[in-house]
Amino acid sequence: LIKAFDEILRVAKEKGPRVIAVAVAQDIEVLSAINSAKDLGIAEAILVGDKNELIEAAGKCGVELAKFEILDIADKTEACRKAVELVSTGKAHLVMKGLVDTSVILKAVLDEKIGLRTGNVLSHVAVFHVEGYDRLFYVTDAAMNLAPTLDQKKQIIENAVQVAHALGNENPYVGVLAAVEKVNPKMQATLDAAELVAMNQRNELTGCRVAGPFALDNAVSVEAAKHKGMTDPAAGHADILMVPTIEAGNLLYKSMVFFAKAKNAGIIVGAKAPVVLTSRADSDEAKLNSIAIGVLMASK
Amino acid sequence: LIKAFDEILRVAKEKGPRVIAVAVAQDIEVLSAINSAKDLGIAEAILVGDKNELIEAAGKCGVELAKFEILDIADKTEACRKAVELVSTGKAHLVMKGLVDTSVILKAVLDEKIGLRTGNVLSHVAVFHVEGYDRLFYVTDAAMNLAPTLDQKKQIIENAVQVAHALGNENPYVGVLAAVEKVNPKMQATLDAAELVAMNQRNELTGCRVAGPFALDNAVSVEAAKHKGMTDPAAGHADILMVPTIEAGNLLYKSMVFFAKAKNAGIIVGAKAPVVLTSRADSDEAKLNSIAIGVLMASK
Repeated sequence: LIKAFDEILRVAKEKGPRVIAVAVAQDIEVLSAINSAKDLGIAEAILVGDKNELIEAAGKCGVELAKFEILDIADKTEACRKAVELVSTGKAHLVMKGLVDTSVILKAVLDEKIGLRTGNVLSHVAVFHVEGYDRLFYVTDAAMNLAPTLDQKKQIIENAVQVAHALGNENPYVGVLAAVEKVNPKMQATLDAAELVAMNQRNELTGCRVAGPFALDNAVSVEAAKHKGMTDPAAGHADILMVPTIEAGNLLYKSMVFFAKAKNAGIIVGAKAPVVLTSRADSDEAKLNSIAIGVLMASK
Repeated sequence: LIKAFDEILRVAKEKGPRVIAVAVAQDIEVLSAINSAKDLGIAEAILVGDKNELIEAAGKCGVELAKFEILDIADKTEACRKAVELVSTGKAHLVMKGLVDTSVILKAVLDEKIGLRTGNVLSHVAVFHVEGYDRLFYVTDAAMNLAPTLDQKKQIIENAVQVAHALGNENPYVGVLAAVEKVNPKMQATLDAAELVAMNQRNELTGCRVAGPFALDNAVSVEAAKHKGMTDPAAGHADILMVPTIEAGNLLYKSMVFFAKAKNAGIIVGAKAPVVLTSRADSDEAKLNSIAIGVLMASK
């Protein structure tokens, strides 16, 4: 059971390296992160992109390109398709986004012919370590699905459960979050929470224990849960924090990064292989951690 | 311009004391907070409630009841109505909730005859100080309005602006929050943000500068805003953080309290007088700070 980010790196090193296909790899920050992962023994990489731009970017960040296999494809859409194809044909184990719009790489991932689609919802799982807490939190979905339906929420939970499993948490508690901890017909998030709990009890949603609705405090703080007189064993112990909408998730996510200074990483799950998709605002550490989680996912 | 909670207490002491009508005052924690506010010279109080229970509660928390005027009313609904009436008739300046459900006291506040209704939306404003930030944040509405309409959002901003004004911030920046910083027709929060900005530019929403849509990072971090190439002068400088739904707001609020360990206070605004409504989970400090903000609001 991995409880902190240094352990993620250590275990990824043990289980790795895995091969990352980097789509449009001529991104200074992505190259740096890939280089660190390579040096740590976590990952190998195939860099797909414009070779001249790759040489220029590598020069700027002091990365020795000779360490990596390079596929010279200037067109960004083509580079994304090639990177994805490397994974679907087994030459690489996961995909990482470089200097290209998210929509372009996701289109390649979802391509019926060369892509990695499974028919399931793709969703984003953010992994956090907050100072003072003894475990990792998995926040989902703060980035991809705008206002998921009940069935999409079920799949979003299943995706997050895969990440928790890959990090050694074999039966995570899922806290389905809302503004309150009582079911209120005026608040769809609470109705969906009750339904997701019922699905879990009927074994239609497995590999985890689903509880809620919870307000955030009752999901993460045993003391707050006691204060409310809650007796659910998941209360205060949630690992996966499932948010009702992208606005709620994004505010939680950004608040954890900017206000709580929590360490973080993120990954896209639901395709046949993990997709690492970092943003420019992520720290170098967050980018490396995201790669490490991708490697753990791809090592299962 | 008040930038931290110790200043709130200091200024409330200068401008106070104001008289608080405490509805169903036989609540140990509320009594303690009222007692601290009295000792600091911030507030006087009229305790409305069951006298026997008041004596018992005061005994448990070591509060000397002789310092306060007491109105012995055992029935909770009647006690709420009386407390509200004390304010509407000018004998007290603000109301505070004791050992009674929120709905009961709000019903009294909204009563057409003895209440404090203005026709405007009542909304909750949470005031935060996060370590490392040079100003207070006003988060609204994380507690009362479930999914406000555009017009309700306008009033919610107006209510928060009143609180910022009372704390010396004469022209606060309002960051209208969403999951992204671009207007996206699939995301109502971004459409409403654009409309609220336009209302502000047309002088239909005044006393503040409204900007957005912002993701949280671009609202509070100048560096993150620069990273995104944002040029709006409000970017990174928002004082009021206006959330789209109660779920988004509650997650942000709870995350700030439980993950970021931010200092906080809260108040209900939109009635003729402020309503202090603390929850059992609030710290003693948060309760006292909430009273102090109520006193500042009532001193304008």
